[in-house]
Amino acid sequence: MSTSKEDRSMSNRLTRPTRRSVLRGLGATPVVAVAGVTAFHQADAAAVPSAFPAPSRRLQMYAVELPDYSGEKRVGYGLTPETASVPGPTIEMLEGEAIEIVLHNQVSAETLEALRTDEHTPIGVSLHAHGVRYGQDSDGTVHSGSWVAPGESRSYVWWARPVNRAAGIAGSAGYWWYHDHVVGTQHGTGGLEAGLFGALIVRRRSDPLPVTTYVTAFGDGMELNARRYPDTDTYDPAAPVRSNTSIVANQGERIEFVNLALGSELHTWHLHGHTWADTRTGVLPDDAWADMVPVIDNKTIGPGDSFGFQVIAGEGSGPGHWMLHCHLQTHSDMGMSTYFHVHDRQGRPPTGPWPPEHGHMPMSGTTGTTGAAGVEDHSGH
Amino acid sequence: MSTSKEDRSMSNRLTRPTRRSVLRGLGATPVVAVAGVTAFHQADAAAVPSAFPAPSRRLQMYAVELPDYSGEKRVGYGLTPETASVPGPTIEMLEGEAIEIVLHNQVSAETLEALRTDEHTPIGVSLHAHGVRYGQDSDGTVHSGSWVAPGESRSYVWWARPVNRAAGIAGSAGYWWYHDHVVGTQHGTGGLEAGLFGALIVRRRSDPLPVTTYVTAFGDGMELNARRYPDTDTYDPAAPVRSNTSIVANQGERIEFVNLALGSELHTWHLHGHTWADTRTGVLPDDAWADMVPVIDNKTIGPGDSFGFQVIAGEGSGPGHWMLHCHLQTHSDMGMSTYFHVHDRQGRPPTGPWPPEHGHMPMSGTTGTTGAAGVEDHSGH
Amino acid sequence: MSTSKEDRSMSNRLTRPTRRSVLRGLGATPVVAVAGVTAFHQADAAAVPSAFPAPSRRLQMYAVELPDYSGEKRVGYGLTPETASVPGPTIEMLEGEAIEIVLHNQVSAETLEALRTDEHTPIGVSLHAHGVRYGQDSDGTVHSGSWVAPGESRSYVWWARPVNRAAGIAGSAGYWWYHDHVVGTQHGTGGLEAGLFGALIVRRRSDPLPVTTYVTAFGDGMELNARRYPDTDTYDPAAPVRSNTSIVANQGERIEFVNLALGSELHTWHLHGHTWADTRTGVLPDDAWADMVPVIDNKTIGPGDSFGFQVIAGEGSGPGHWMLHCHLQTHSDMGMSTYFHVHDRQGRPPTGPWPPEHGHMPMSGTTGTTGAAGVEDHSGH
Repeated sequence: MSTSKEDRSMSNRLTRPTRRSVLRGLGATPVVAVAGVTAFHQADAAAVPSAFPAPSRRLQMYAVELPDYSGEKRVGYGLTPETASVPGPTIEMLEGEAIEIVLHNQVSAETLEALRTDEHTPIGVSLHAHGVRYGQDSDGTVHSGSWVAPGESRSYVWWARPVNRAAGIAGSAGYWWYHDHVVGTQHGTGGLEAGLFGALIVRRRSDPLPVTTYVTAFGDGMELNARRYPDTDTYDPAAPVRSNTSIVANQGERIEFVNLALGSELHTWHLHGHTWADTRTGVLPDDAWADMVPVIDNKTIGPGDSFGFQVIAGEGSGPGHWMLHCHLQTHSDMGMSTYFHVHDRQGRPPTGPWPPEHGHMPMSGTTGTTGAAGVEDHSGH
Repeated sequence: MSTSKEDRSMSNRLTRPTRRSVLRGLGATPVVAVAGVTAFHQADAAAVPSAFPAPSRRLQMYAVELPDYSGEKRVGYGLTPETASVPGPTIEMLEGEAIEIVLHNQVSAETLEALRTDEHTPIGVSLHAHGVRYGQDSDGTVHSGSWVAPGESRSYVWWARPVNRAAGIAGSAGYWWYHDHVVGTQHGTGGLEAGLFGALIVRRRSDPLPVTTYVTAFGDGMELNARRYPDTDTYDPAAPVRSNTSIVANQGERIEFVNLALGSELHTWHLHGHTWADTRTGVLPDDAWADMVPVIDNKTIGPGDSFGFQVIAGEGSGPGHWMLHCHLQTHSDMGMSTYFHVHDRQGRPPTGPWPPEHGHMPMSGTTGTTGAAGVEDHSGH
Repeated sequence: MSTSKEDRSMSNRLTRPTRRSVLRGLGATPVVAVAGVTAFHQADAAAVPSAFPAPSRRLQMYAVELPDYSGEKRVGYGLTPETASVPGPTIEMLEGEAIEIVLHNQVSAETLEALRTDEHTPIGVSLHAHGVRYGQDSDGTVHSGSWVAPGESRSYVWWARPVNRAAGIAGSAGYWWYHDHVVGTQHGTGGLEAGLFGALIVRRRSDPLPVTTYVTAFGDGMELNARRYPDTDTYDPAAPVRSNTSIVANQGERIEFVNLALGSELHTWHLHGHTWADTRTGVLPDDAWADMVPVIDNKTIGPGDSFGFQVIAGEGSGPGHWMLHCHLQTHSDMGMSTYFHVHDRQGRPPTGPWPPEHGHMPMSGTTGTTGAAGVEDHSGH
C-alpha cells in the first residue's frame, strides 16, 4: 500500500533513528512479517471516522454545592440540581452510541476560589471522561478551554466507540468514570476532593444486566464515597433501601459493583464472601482458555483506575453482612469500609441485631487525616 | 422467565432509577439482547447451592506465641503448636472439596491485649480466607462473632468452589491466603503485623504440580516473611535445606512461588533471571490467543493481594544466586530482599564462596522503620 | 518418566512436608491428572537449552556523566558517549535472538562515590535487564561481580527467549527495560535516580510496527523522564521534532508508548483521548474471547514495572494536545505531566497558540520534593 509506505518513510525521517542504529546488526532481515504490518496499516486509515455519530440523546448535568462533610467542602454532579450527590449519577451507554451532556455550573465563584490552590487555574468546572472518545473541545481541560464558568453551560460529546476487530482496536465497553479537571488545579485536584466525580458504564448489547449497580469510590483521607465509616453505611434492616451508602441484595441476584479511585493514594479493593474473574465484566465465559485468567477478591487500584464486575449475591456463601473495605490496614481501620448486606432469597435480612454489639465502630480516636468528624454514634443509623 | 422479570421489576423499584433517568433517551431500544440475559438469569438460581458439600477432611490449626523479632511480638499459625511459623503452613485444596479447620487459640489474653489498638475489638483470634467460599459464621470477623477467645476452639469450613462455566461463575482455583481478622483492630491489623497469615492454594486436577512451593509475604517495615535481609535468607550451600527462608532449587525443576502482601504499604515483587505469564498459574498454554497475555518479571501488589506462578528453575538463565526483592528501592535497600538459589542439574551449588565478599549486606545504619535489629553479621549464617 | 520421578522423590525429602501433612485427608486420590504432569515434566528438561544461541549482533553502550538537572546529578546510557540521554537508548530485539552489549563505564569514581549511600557497594556501573534471559555473569548485580569499574568495559549477553508452547513457557516478547543495579546501593538506587535506565522492546515477527516509539519513565520527585513539567515537553508546533520530550504524531499513525516506573513510589499512567487493551501490545485481536479483556486508559505501575501499547493517534478523538500524566493528583500538579501532540493527517498542528494562555504551568511554588528548580518560564521552549 503505497500511502502507508510513504507515511512510514516520512515519519522515519522525523523519528529518532533508534531502529536503524539499534537493529542495524540485523542487516536485511525484515523486522516483522510484511503481511501483518500491511493488514494493520490498511486498517489504520479506515479506523478513524471523519466525525462522531450524531448524539442519540442529551443529558443535563448540574454541578452544585452540597453540605460540608466533616468540615470539608462538598460539590456534586446531579442530573437535576436537587439530586446532586457524591458520587454523581451513574451514566450508562451502549457501545456505538454518542451522547451529549450539557453541564450547568451552579457552583459559586467564591467556592471555586476557596478550592483553588493554583493561581494559574481559572474559576470553572468541567467534565472529563475516561474510556470513551471525545474531541479536544470535550476534553474538560484548562488548556483546551473546555470548561464552564459559574452560571454558564457547555456541551460535551462522548462517543462509546464500537469494537473494530479487523483493525485490532478495542471498543469502549468497560467500567469507567468521569470527573472535573479544572477546579483547584489544572488537574482538577480541588474538584475531585470536593466530590465532582461519578461512574460511567459502557455496555455491549450482549452483556448481562444486573439487578442493581453499586458504586464505590476510594479517595484520600480514608474516604469511601467521600465518607468514612460508619457514615459509609446507612443500611437499616427494617427498611433496606438500595443506594451507594446502603449496599443491599437478595441472595441469588446479579449485582454489579463499579469501583473508582481518585486523589493521591493507592488502595486495595476487597469484598468478603465473593470472588470475580479479572476480566472486563468479572464474568468468566465457557471457554477452555479461561482457565488462565486469575480469579480475585482483592484488587490494587490507584487514582484514575476504575474497574467493575458482577457477582451473584451470596453465591456459595449465603446471606450475611459481608465486609467491603480497603485492605490497607490503616485505611480500613480508620473508616474506609462498608458492608454488602445479603438478604435471603425472600428478602429477609440476616438474623441477629444490626448493628451488632461488636464490630461496628472504627478505631477510637482515629478518624482519618483530613478532619475531626466522621466518627459518630452508630445508634443513629 | 417470569421469576427473573419479577425480580427485576421489584428491584428496580428499590434501586435508584439511574437506568431509567440516564438511558431514557434510548426509548424502546432493548439495552441488552434478551438471549444473553435470560441465559445468565436462568443460571443464577441454580448456581447457588443450598449447602456446602460435606468437608472431606479436617485440619487442626493452632495460633501460638513465637519469639520476638527485632523487639516485635510474633504470633504464628501451625498445624501443631510446635510447628507454628511465620508465614503459617501452606494449605492446599482441590477445586470442589470443602475442608474443616479447627482453630485452637493458644495465645494469651495478655499478648492479645498488648496487640490491641482498638478498644472495641474483642480479645481473640480468627481465620479469614481469601478466594474460597464460606458462610458468615466462617468469616473470621468480629461482627459475625466468628472468632476464638484464648483457650477456646472453633471450626471454620471453606469450600473451593468448582467452576460453573454454564453460569459464567469462576471456580476458586488460585493462589490465595488466609489471615486473622480480629487481633488488634476489627480488621486484624495487630494479628497480621504479628504474623498470623499463611498461603492457601486451590488447584484444579489438571494443574501441573511443582517440586517445591515457596511462600513470600511482603509486609510493612521492609519485611519479607516478617524478616529483613539477611534474616530472610538462611541458605547454606553445604546443607541446602528448602524452606521459605532458604529458597533453593535444582536447574530444571518446576518451582512454585506464592506471594502475599499485607499491612498498609504497596510493593513490587521482582525475581531475577526468570519470567512468568500474568495468568492464573504463570503458565502460558499452547493457544494462539495467549499471544495477548503480558509476560512479566515484576508485579505491583497491595495488601490483600496474592498471586503465584510456576517457573522452571534456571530455564534459559542457568544456575546462580538470583535476587528476589521488592523493586521499591528504599524497600530492597533496607532488607526486603532474598535469593532464589538455583543449583545445577546434579544439585551442586554455584561455584564461588557464599556469601560473597560484596553484595551481602543491606545499607549500613538503615535497618527499616520498625526496629533496631535485623542487621546482623552474616557470618553467622 | 523415571528421572522425573526420582527428582520428585528426592526433592520431597528436602522439602517441608506441607503437601503430605495438609493433603493427607485426600488418601489415595491423585492430586493432579497424570497426563498433565507428565507432559510438562517431559518438557522441563528439553526446555532448558544447554547454552544460549550465539549473539547475532553486538552493541556498544556507554555510561557517561550528563549536566545536572535541578541541582541533581545525571548519568545516562548512550550508544555513543555523545548521544547518552535519560532515558537511555531504546533497545529492540526479536524473539529468538541473543545480543551482546559491551558496557563502557566512563563515569568518574568521584561521581560514583558521590552517588553512593551504601559503603558495602563497590564503585562501578552495570546493566540489569528485565524480561530477557541472561546468565548469572550478565545479571548486573554486585554479588555476581557483573559490574564495570570506571574506565573499564564488560560484555553482557541477553537472550530473547522464543515461546515454547509445548512446555507452557512464555517467550520474552514484551515491553521491558534495563537499568544499573550497582551505583549507590546494591540495588542501584543511586544509578536509577541519576538516570541509568532505558527501554527494552522484544517483538515477535508478526507484531505490527509503529511509526514512532515514545518512552515515558515515571520516577520519584514527580519526574517524568527525569524532568518535571514544563521541562518534560519541548514541543514546538513550528518545528515538531519527535523525541521523548516532544511526543508528536499525525492523526492515523500507529504510535507506540513504552512506559517504565523506577524509584520508590507508585504511579498511575494516564493518557487523554485514547484507550488500549490490557494485553501484551495493547492491541485486541479478532477473537471472541477478547471480549473479556479490560480496556483501559489508566494503569497503576510500581517500580520495576514496565508496559507498552500501540494506539492509532487521534483515533476517534482527532487532533489535539492530549494530556499524558500521572493521575496521582499531587504528582501531576507538581510536574509529572506532558502532552501527546496529535497533528492532523497532513501534519498540521492543532489550531490556536501554543503554549496556551492557561493550562501550561504547574502549581506555583510546588516544584517537587527533590530540588528547588524544575519550574521555569516556558517561553523559552
